Amino acid sequence: MSDYPQLSVNQATLREQCSLAEIVPLLARHAIHGVAVWRDKLHECGVKQGAQLLRDHNMTVTGYCVGGLLSDPDPTVFEQSLEDNRRIIEEAAEINAQCVVFLAGGLVAGVKDIDAARERALEGLSLLIPEARAAGVVLGLEPLHPMVCASRSVLSTMKAANDWRDQLEAPDVVGIVVDTYNVWWDPDLSQEIARAGQAICAFHVADWLVDTSDLRLDRGMPGDGVIDIPRIRALVEDAGYGGPREVEIFSRDNWWRRDPDEVLEIIKARYRHSM
Amino acid sequence: MSDYPQLSVNQATLREQCSLAEIVPLLARHAIHGVAVWRDKLHECGVKQGAQLLRDHNMTVTGYCVGGLLSDPDPTVFEQSLEDNRRIIEEAAEINAQCVVFLAGGLVAGVKDIDAARERALEGLSLLIPEARAAGVVLGLEPLHPMVCASRSVLSTMKAANDWRDQLEAPDVVGIVVDTYNVWWDPDLSQEIARAGQAICAFHVADWLVDTSDLRLDRGMPGDGVIDIPRIRALVEDAGYGGPREVEIFSRDNWWRRDPDEVLEIIKARYRHSM
Repeated sequence: MSDYPQLSVNQATLREQCSLAEIVPLLARHAIHGVAVWRDKLHECGVKQGAQLLRDHNMTVTGYCVGGLLSDPDPTVFEQSLEDNRRIIEEAAEINAQCVVFLAGGLVAGVKDIDAARERALEGLSLLIPEARAAGVVLGLEPLHPMVCASRSVLSTMKAANDWRDQLEAPDVVGIVVDTYNVWWDPDLSQEIARAGQAICAFHVADWLVDTSDLRLDRGMPGDGVIDIPRIRALVEDAGYGGPREVEIFSRDNWWRRDPDEVLEIIKARYRHSM
Repeated sequence: MSDYPQLSVNQATLREQCSLAEIVPLLARHAIHGVAVWRDKLHECGVKQGAQLLRDHNMTVTGYCVGGLLSDPDPTVFEQSLEDNRRIIEEAAEINAQCVVFLAGGLVAGVKDIDAARERALEGLSLLIPEARAAGVVLGLEPLHPMVCASRSVLSTMKAANDWRDQLEAPDVVGIVVDTYNVWWDPDLSQEIARAGQAICAFHVADWLVDTSDLRLDRGMPGDGVIDIPRIRALVEDAGYGGPREVEIFSRDNWWRRDPDEVLEIIKARYRHSM
């Protein structure tokens, strides 16, 4: 039994410090039994070995990162990305992940048609539904912050994610991932979280530092920034989500340089009041 | 008669190179007769002297930057900001600016109630309407990019700006500023620009670089990034806006280091096809 039943740590939070083979026993020693797995780290470990390791330590895999990235206008690249996503779905099934974290993809330099990029990403997602359904894998659409619209995701709001989900008509397969860092600024947040309802398949937490210095790699520890994370948690719980709070902190100059035990102790200390 | 009747240059584009006394004759030599003025630069020149300079060079002042910043929860700070905005309105009238560029303001470190910050900014704006009306000055609400929500503006979308304008019921005084860099990612952009209609009082252009490296000071020259600026210009023109395209590029490591004549030549070269 875990002391932190609703806590998961995305392994990106200790990206620079730990392999998968290292982080899983480390989390278990800290009585944390939720983890989100990144693909490069799983491959480094070996998919079968990683799946066994996760089972051996009784880990709930709260997400497999990342699928999607299907916005490229080159048909060859698009087909290759689709094939890649089929492998990702198989791997997610093998590690029993609660969802694939699914990102739309950004814009390629020189391409300015954002509507077309959105249409391609949506089409790609629709083409993957049969495989995901057969594998019993949920595709968790995660809107990212508009500041990474060009580089990472043309899907930028909860409203857009809900709209896509409505269009796809596959509620058993398509979920929605709420990440506080990506959506906290959104004036429509409460209504769109309520609209997502039980489609919410993961809840990621990180804080926004007032003096943030980087577009991707300067996330804050819950409690250190301006996001009212407990309020957003209340919104997702009111919407019907009862799963873990997954701490996902990309932090090149701070948390990625610290001792992993220290990072986890701080996460646990913040668990009750700051997330 | 200007060769570039629809072109304006926001003086932030040459912030590091030119004072107001320098940029106004420089623009005139380049046959550009639109400029947006920043308050610190006007004060450096002297308000009366600056106003005379602008008249002498037949400049259309497409905006006065910046007013607002009224989100602080400290009542004393709020009152001081209101007083400051009253001076800003007087100065805008003196230089015959087409609008005050009005920013909501961000969050103070330690404050997490974004809804309350929005309410204060909206209340502050409402309190300034009588003075603005008496002075014949338009307050141009500019939604900023969500990545500066904490530091600069809790007003992040065209929809939110339109909602505020509806609530204020002062269509003669409250306008909306569309800045391509701030709103290009918004999936509701076309409908909210159409909704703003003739309330659009300024159109700012800058491009988003795919590899942008800074949250505020790495804007791109129109044509160098991923924003389809001509498409957004068509949207604002379809909505009824017939005014200038104002080039506003904050660029610490590139355009702020270049020769001002070179920057203006490039802007003029991009004028016809990239904005």
